Amino acid sequence: MNYYFDNAATTPISERALEKYISTSRNITGNPSSIHRQGTQAKEYLEAERRRIADTLGIQPGQIVFTSGASEAISRVMESLLWLKNPGAVIISKIEHEAVKSYAAILKDRGWDIRWLKAKEGHPSSVDLEKLLSPEVKLVAIMSVNNVTGAITGIPELVATVRNYEKKTGRKIVFFSDSVQALGKTELDLKGWDVDCASFSSHKINGPRGVGMLYIKNRNFLHPLAAQGGQENGLRGGTENTPGISAFAEALVELYENREEKDRKAAEVSSFIRNELETAGFEILSKAPCTPYIISVATPLPAEVFTRMLMDKGFCVSSGSACSNNAKGKGEGTLQSMGFPARLGENAIRISLAENPDMESAKALVEAMKEIADAR
Amino acid sequence: MNYYFDNAATTPISERALEKYISTSRNITGNPSSIHRQGTQAKEYLEAERRRIADTLGIQPGQIVFTSGASEAISRVMESLLWLKNPGAVIISKIEHEAVKSYAAILKDRGWDIRWLKAKEGHPSSVDLEKLLSPEVKLVAIMSVNNVTGAITGIPELVATVRNYEKKTGRKIVFFSDSVQALGKTELDLKGWDVDCASFSSHKINGPRGVGMLYIKNRNFLHPLAAQGGQENGLRGGTENTPGISAFAEALVELYENREEKDRKAAEVSSFIRNELETAGFEILSKAPCTPYIISVATPLPAEVFTRMLMDKGFCVSSGSACSNNAKGKGEGTLQSMGFPARLGENAIRISLAENPDMESAKALVEAMKEIADAR
Repeated sequence: MNYYFDNAATTPISERALEKYISTSRNITGNPSSIHRQGTQAKEYLEAERRRIADTLGIQPGQIVFTSGASEAISRVMESLLWLKNPGAVIISKIEHEAVKSYAAILKDRGWDIRWLKAKEGHPSSVDLEKLLSPEVKLVAIMSVNNVTGAITGIPELVATVRNYEKKTGRKIVFFSDSVQALGKTELDLKGWDVDCASFSSHKINGPRGVGMLYIKNRNFLHPLAAQGGQENGLRGGTENTPGISAFAEALVELYENREEKDRKAAEVSSFIRNELETAGFEILSKAPCTPYIISVATPLPAEVFTRMLMDKGFCVSSGSACSNNAKGKGEGTLQSMGFPARLGENAIRISLAENPDMESAKALVEAMKEIADAR
Repeated sequence: MNYYFDNAATTPISERALEKYISTSRNITGNPSSIHRQGTQAKEYLEAERRRIADTLGIQPGQIVFTSGASEAISRVMESLLWLKNPGAVIISKIEHEAVKSYAAILKDRGWDIRWLKAKEGHPSSVDLEKLLSPEVKLVAIMSVNNVTGAITGIPELVATVRNYEKKTGRKIVFFSDSVQALGKTELDLKGWDVDCASFSSHKINGPRGVGMLYIKNRNFLHPLAAQGGQENGLRGGTENTPGISAFAEALVELYENREEKDRKAAEVSSFIRNELETAGFEILSKAPCTPYIISVATPLPAEVFTRMLMDKGFCVSSGSACSNNAKGKGEGTLQSMGFPARLGENAIRISLAENPDMESAKALVEAMKEIADAR
């Protein structure tokens, strides 16, 4: 038996998305940039899929830039800063994914001032953000849902703080919210939030690997290092991954079907896991407001040990985020930066639920975790 | 009836590659960066596919960095230059794809000296290259097969010129060869050529979209702007596209099967097309040495008109490269930079053959082209 509780790392592609990938691969074979029939057919198909995604998310098709994933979507935003003649300051929350945080090095090298925004228990405060604002600030990067604990950061209020400051100075500040873990895990309202850009990944929502997108309210501030083939309105070169994009669109539409029922189920399963584990003496590090789909739990053992013991019982959970396994020991951990004691952070595992979580698996997981803790 | 002669723009995914994509998607669902069973299984699978590609190309697995396509592979090389403290000079051939050429803007902005290497009829000369070399040169970018005419540029001799110069100065010069159109279209010998890096695309060889790779002889000079998730040995962040990579590997292995027979057939079909068209008064702009898989032909009409008229008869060819359609009128065209008169360039279409070209379609194409020319 294999129970998969690592859906924040990646999800299996849904059959519907895979079928879409297959049919698009077989039927839409042209290059959307070609002017002949197969090219224009591919272009029309691609644009229809773009509209489908835009409609689902309540945004405009022209506000979507397709990329190879969230990492690349993030790159498009961060590298745009390198074009600016005079370096300024950027505010980056301390709990960002490495995909964002690791841009600090090149920006610093170019003379940028990096201001790290703290986020107690995963929740940055508007007051702290306001203190970091100054006329030099060109960009603020705060994720909408944290990938380690599922904390909902409170983007609307944080954006409002920035917008108020903009009114005072008359200078534009780009608000970028990496929203990979928000999609399908919390209410997502890009327009209402009033963010300038947001990054998304397909493979986190049962879509194919190698596909992602950048939402941009308007394209003015985006400036890729090189236009390359000029695709995506000059914002992202490279032949468009039509089958991948269509499968992503399919996964997204599927994600939003019976949304309320899924969220209700997730809340139920999540509460069960949290309550059972707390009663058994585990400490839950996912603090409200947070998504029910991600639960960070401090165990009595080092996270890697506990993860492996769970694996032996057939359960896949994560010790930290998957990507952080590639950068072990580099810098402060996300949980530590949230203010949790180092020991709790080192012992914390991440349980992340599927789009359609089931209670039976949750019960089995809780039992296994209790057994490991008791046997210690 | 639909005859597709635009294989240099994109190719349909082969059934074998698609089947591989499907089976990998269904069976290998973990994130290669996860430490649990599904993660390690995915990691092992990914590394086996990397070895399969390395073996096929006669290189080491550690010399492969998987990307979302050739454009991104090119980016990895070009953006590495931005880390260098003191800007130097780069030599870029005038016939490079926009994916390479468009990096000139940011480099120039950073104080780099861009030296354009001419390439008469698509063949840069070692003598010209030598004249452009100086101690400031950090990188030379020359593609191995041109995407518009199929000209084979003569990489071994060009690399030797650079290596000789290196011996004199004792300074390393990175030789980068965009080899998208070389794969399956000419003898490819990365080790023998002694290039430092080379970019490849999956969808040009009947593999999936959104997959490519960068060959790097050694990783020392590669420095991505940000390590992000740290995948690909820190050289390319983002969850690995395991299904896409495995399908690319499959397409590559398939490409190399019966290689001689395919090349013999392509030479035969290509000669037929060239001879028939020349006899009918068309001028062939693909000059030897060139791959048989790409034929650039000057027609009696503007390329776009001729392309559309062919399309009405059911033939897909290209007027210029697909990507150049996104950047119309910007800068000098590739054919012009090869020394062909502007009028010839404006009237030139590109015929590009499939991996398994057939003579019947070629005959139909030639007849259609003659008909259009005669009816004028």
